[in-house]
Amino acid sequence: MTQPLLRVLQGETLDKPPVWFMRQAGRFLPEYRAIRAKASFEDLLRDSDLAAEVTLQPIRRFPAIDGAIIFSDILVILDALGCGVTIPEGGPRLARTLDQLDPDIELNERIFDPVQDAIRKVKAQLPEHVTMLGFAGAPWTLLAYGLEGKGSKTWARAKAFLHQEPAMARKWMDRLADASARLLNLHIGAGAQGVQLFDTWAGELDPADYRAFALPAVTRTLEQVHGAPRLFFARSGYLPQELADLPCEGLAVPWQMPMAEARQRFSASKVLQGNLDPIALLAGKETATKKARAIVDAMKGAPHIFNLGHGLVPETDPDVLQAVIDEVKK
Amino acid sequence: MTQPLLRVLQGETLDKPPVWFMRQAGRFLPEYRAIRAKASFEDLLRDSDLAAEVTLQPIRRFPAIDGAIIFSDILVILDALGCGVTIPEGGPRLARTLDQLDPDIELNERIFDPVQDAIRKVKAQLPEHVTMLGFAGAPWTLLAYGLEGKGSKTWARAKAFLHQEPAMARKWMDRLADASARLLNLHIGAGAQGVQLFDTWAGELDPADYRAFALPAVTRTLEQVHGAPRLFFARSGYLPQELADLPCEGLAVPWQMPMAEARQRFSASKVLQGNLDPIALLAGKETATKKARAIVDAMKGAPHIFNLGHGLVPETDPDVLQAVIDEVKK
Repeated sequence: MTQPLLRVLQGETLDKPPVWFMRQAGRFLPEYRAIRAKASFEDLLRDSDLAAEVTLQPIRRFPAIDGAIIFSDILVILDALGCGVTIPEGGPRLARTLDQLDPDIELNERIFDPVQDAIRKVKAQLPEHVTMLGFAGAPWTLLAYGLEGKGSKTWARAKAFLHQEPAMARKWMDRLADASARLLNLHIGAGAQGVQLFDTWAGELDPADYRAFALPAVTRTLEQVHGAPRLFFARSGYLPQELADLPCEGLAVPWQMPMAEARQRFSASKVLQGNLDPIALLAGKETATKKARAIVDAMKGAPHIFNLGHGLVPETDPDVLQAVIDEVKK
Repeated sequence: MTQPLLRVLQGETLDKPPVWFMRQAGRFLPEYRAIRAKASFEDLLRDSDLAAEVTLQPIRRFPAIDGAIIFSDILVILDALGCGVTIPEGGPRLARTLDQLDPDIELNERIFDPVQDAIRKVKAQLPEHVTMLGFAGAPWTLLAYGLEGKGSKTWARAKAFLHQEPAMARKWMDRLADASARLLNLHIGAGAQGVQLFDTWAGELDPADYRAFALPAVTRTLEQVHGAPRLFFARSGYLPQELADLPCEGLAVPWQMPMAEARQRFSASKVLQGNLDPIALLAGKETATKKARAIVDAMKGAPHIFNLGHGLVPETDPDVLQAVIDEVKK
């Protein structure tokens, strides 16, 4: 029997939508924090047993979850390009920014070995109904981190680079697109049955620049990915209509957009995923389940994967998440 | 002769759009920093001579600017309600949050005296073509600060309050709406010829909650303001269509939305203002003027006030701002 998440990604409408949560393998779970008390974030990236374990934790705790997203980080691609990425508590730090590197540099694919091993290990233990998901960062998001060298409030350096060095910017965007596609294909080769491309900083670019620089690279990434359905997540309050034409099966909708409007604008060509505000989970079971129900109702009759509209935050009470799962599966 | 900014707010289309900049009275100017070296932010709020001076600084430096927005802070309303607001470098801090106060508490209008005096002092020195602008914070933004007691990454407490204490939330939203309207009317009484209501945290509420809780309070504010045209700024990537029906003359468009789309959606009923990304100014004259030109072109033939789509950042080079003004006025 095909898994519910895959059936929906193939365009089927189910009475009870499949469900998974962005950042479900993470800090909101006490069992994750117990592992992190003994191992750093980088340890988890390098050790496929630990990565497999934290990937499986939410699957064990919430048996009704339909997707297992592999534990990893979008910045592994920058690490494989030679940026020297570390991820301390305060956020990622790069030893070298992309403008100090040659865009023709070879990708050190050994960096991707642990995540492939972890996918294989998770798959061996995954309940039959659960779909294995891989992921990667989108080119603009990687370029933004890669040029700033860390998180930024304004991303001013990365945004300026697109205009001050347009040829180099395009070269890097192509390089990053190819690297993202390569990583997603490696995930699929190791057993991922679906993949999501994360454009975390999509909302930081003005729409003209997003169209001119970021979207062509997203297209270039997605059209090179084969063998599994593709989801794209642009984290942005404003979603350009061109998302409807991307070479992917699904769109992850940010929480800022009413799901009914996303349906109207995109569901003719895309399966929609989302889009509960993760902060609504902090308001308690009653509010969270009411909002989850409204999202499910807005998508009734169309293929829909229930999820958040951004990642789970560490303060989330697992019991509230369980209540939301119960509501969606009611 | 009527001022260009007022003519446009009355619905007229000008060949060269009037221009002003959110946060033009602020940290990007060396002459402002010189004053702040000797006086705190709170000193400026309490001293009408200093407030008038920093309001006039950008007008002197950029003679082609068409609007002078009075130096003040959106949180003066929370101060007048008894929250005990201080504004150190790290961001605002409240001694008491709104849930510790009674929503029937009287507004201490003495707090608003300096800003009214400052408006009078600025007006006495303002070149004839420059329009005096007042402003206030919108109810949801004030409630968010008022409940959190400071800035927040998630605004979880304020967002939860709307659902956990809906009756009290509505009572406070009404109270804040009335206070905002009162302050804007005091600004107008002192000489403001136009006012802008800032909903800085509009984008933090999901659209359902923004519609249910925030928009009715915005309407309540705006419909009580008399004697000057009203602009409304919802800082949010997603703009609900209901903004078209607000009782105000103009909408300030955030930089996340293409101006052409804002025109299509809102210009039948609203004068549009905006919407250059302030970070584009950090990319240098060529990029900034090119983007400014695209915005002006997108609004050609419709009433348009050129502005940013969010406030100026401290790193802005005044020469780049001058180049943008020159481009818009070309």
